[in-house]
Amino acid sequence: MEETGKSNQVELKSLAELQQIISEKITGFCELNGDKEIFQPVNYIMQLGGKRLRPALCLMATNVFCDNIDGAVHPALAIEVFHNFSLMHDDIMDRAPIRRGLPTVHKKWNDNVAILSGDAMMIQSYQLLMKTNPEVFPDVMHVFNEVAIDVCEGQQLDMNFESRVSVSVAEYEEMIRLKTSVLLAGAMKIGAIIGGADSVAQKAMFDFGVELGMSFQLWDDYLDAFGDGKLTGKLVGGDILADKKTFLRLRCMELANEEEKKVLLANNSVNLNDPGSRVKSVVDLYSKLGVDEELKKEAERRHQKALSILNDLKVPVKRKMQLQLLAEQLLNRTN
Amino acid sequence: MEETGKSNQVELKSLAELQQIISEKITGFCELNGDKEIFQPVNYIMQLGGKRLRPALCLMATNVFCDNIDGAVHPALAIEVFHNFSLMHDDIMDRAPIRRGLPTVHKKWNDNVAILSGDAMMIQSYQLLMKTNPEVFPDVMHVFNEVAIDVCEGQQLDMNFESRVSVSVAEYEEMIRLKTSVLLAGAMKIGAIIGGADSVAQKAMFDFGVELGMSFQLWDDYLDAFGDGKLTGKLVGGDILADKKTFLRLRCMELANEEEKKVLLANNSVNLNDPGSRVKSVVDLYSKLGVDEELKKEAERRHQKALSILNDLKVPVKRKMQLQLLAEQLLNRTN
Repeated sequence: MEETGKSNQVELKSLAELQQIISEKITGFCELNGDKEIFQPVNYIMQLGGKRLRPALCLMATNVFCDNIDGAVHPALAIEVFHNFSLMHDDIMDRAPIRRGLPTVHKKWNDNVAILSGDAMMIQSYQLLMKTNPEVFPDVMHVFNEVAIDVCEGQQLDMNFESRVSVSVAEYEEMIRLKTSVLLAGAMKIGAIIGGADSVAQKAMFDFGVELGMSFQLWDDYLDAFGDGKLTGKLVGGDILADKKTFLRLRCMELANEEEKKVLLANNSVNLNDPGSRVKSVVDLYSKLGVDEELKKEAERRHQKALSILNDLKVPVKRKMQLQLLAEQLLNRTN
Repeated sequence: MEETGKSNQVELKSLAELQQIISEKITGFCELNGDKEIFQPVNYIMQLGGKRLRPALCLMATNVFCDNIDGAVHPALAIEVFHNFSLMHDDIMDRAPIRRGLPTVHKKWNDNVAILSGDAMMIQSYQLLMKTNPEVFPDVMHVFNEVAIDVCEGQQLDMNFESRVSVSVAEYEEMIRLKTSVLLAGAMKIGAIIGGADSVAQKAMFDFGVELGMSFQLWDDYLDAFGDGKLTGKLVGGDILADKKTFLRLRCMELANEEEKKVLLANNSVNLNDPGSRVKSVVDLYSKLGVDEELKKEAERRHQKALSILNDLKVPVKRKMQLQLLAEQLLNRTN
């Protein structure tokens, strides 16, 4: 761990700088894949873009404990490849036609290609992970495997919710913890391990990641209904039209009376053939019952919890600044 | 490596003993999985049975170089779990309804379950692999990753063949090398690494595994058309009815005249609604053109090549006996 005495000279890498590093690494990864048939969908999904949040958080976590982040670059890339593998397979299962404004892999090719290239991609994530310094590799791989299984279990819960009539908000939060938050958290713990953090600090980074991930996903739910489509690049009310069981919908179901519940249920909706009105009537109901405010409060609570964990972490304040900044950016984002 | 002086006292484990060890480990693995939803299909496919050839070959390869095979048990299990993961996903892609006499996972549950539990299973194979002795773990994982990618590429070729009009026998052999042989070969190389083999011996075990795998798969093709359904437990002519591009069919296409080709093409077959006659007419054509004998010759050639590689391996003859025995059993098997 960096000594306190040195902390004044420290220059931590910014999110933009880290994204640049990751972007270059992804380009190199895709070039190495070449034009082999099985890797074409891999290169396609890896180059769709995105915030590169997981690898950035991994590198940032290393940087909290160590000036040199080089050792975390391959594991960070492994995490991003794993994340995109899980998107590729989730999109098949969810029958999602569009990802980041472009056709999903199973739409552009077909289901079999998406299954098989996804499988190859998961193996590739382990190939990248193997480039971790051998001294910490077992610890890193242990975390990686654990969160990878959690991501699968989160997807299982998410699929189960579809066919269930009633899901509690607590169950929903457990699902997004597994499906989204633990991979962010695992990325940070891996970064911390590589940076030389002790086990207390490793755990703190993991816990910070979980809270940040929860706040991130909840805010995503908010933006779907209350965001500006021009800024998010997504159809406003996409979750509503897909009848997705999000925080907003589930909490609304808990609070709504019988008449109001009918607004939520597509089958009973008078606006079935008018998506715009359907979205508006549901969003209005959310506002009327105050579930938007509840969600904002919950996202804020998670955000504060993350900051408090970060605050308690025993490293010089300067070393935490980039993480703090990122947390702020994520909460107040409009896209 | 075992010293020559000790070789007389050596008692190598037989296939049956190794299968017993593997079977117990699989039971333990499934018990640990418990009844968690995502692991139910994992336990189901792992308990469908099978020859456990890959893990047995892994342990046998260790036993060639070392009396104690304990260190290879977890990696052997990892390979069997990976193999079954690939079967689970291949069955979705091939729309196969039956595996070892029982419904495939995507039939018993659904496609999404088979995708997701397969994903979890691949992660589990890495969890098991991690239990390898840290000293050799990087080498072991490197081999594992390489053959895992090859298996995916083999499946890709296999799927491509379906939509191609003409495929050469050489292309077919390359496909089965990737899809079947390299995993057997990788299992043996991993076993050899754990047994303490030097790099020359490791390569010999890999090469032996490739030839054994080729001979094994070719013999499988033979049994489909010329085997006894009562012994194989499979429908005789299953490959013929599914229009699978096997060695027999591809070589037959190369040799057949225009009239004979019509027998092979289901679309033109007069026996389309009479599977029994259809199989018989194709099998008769195979015999007439002698492709069954060509296949047997090729399987035998691969078998001999395997034995010659084993023969050249510089370890006491007694240490190779179980592998030799297994190779004989695999070639002359009726199921």
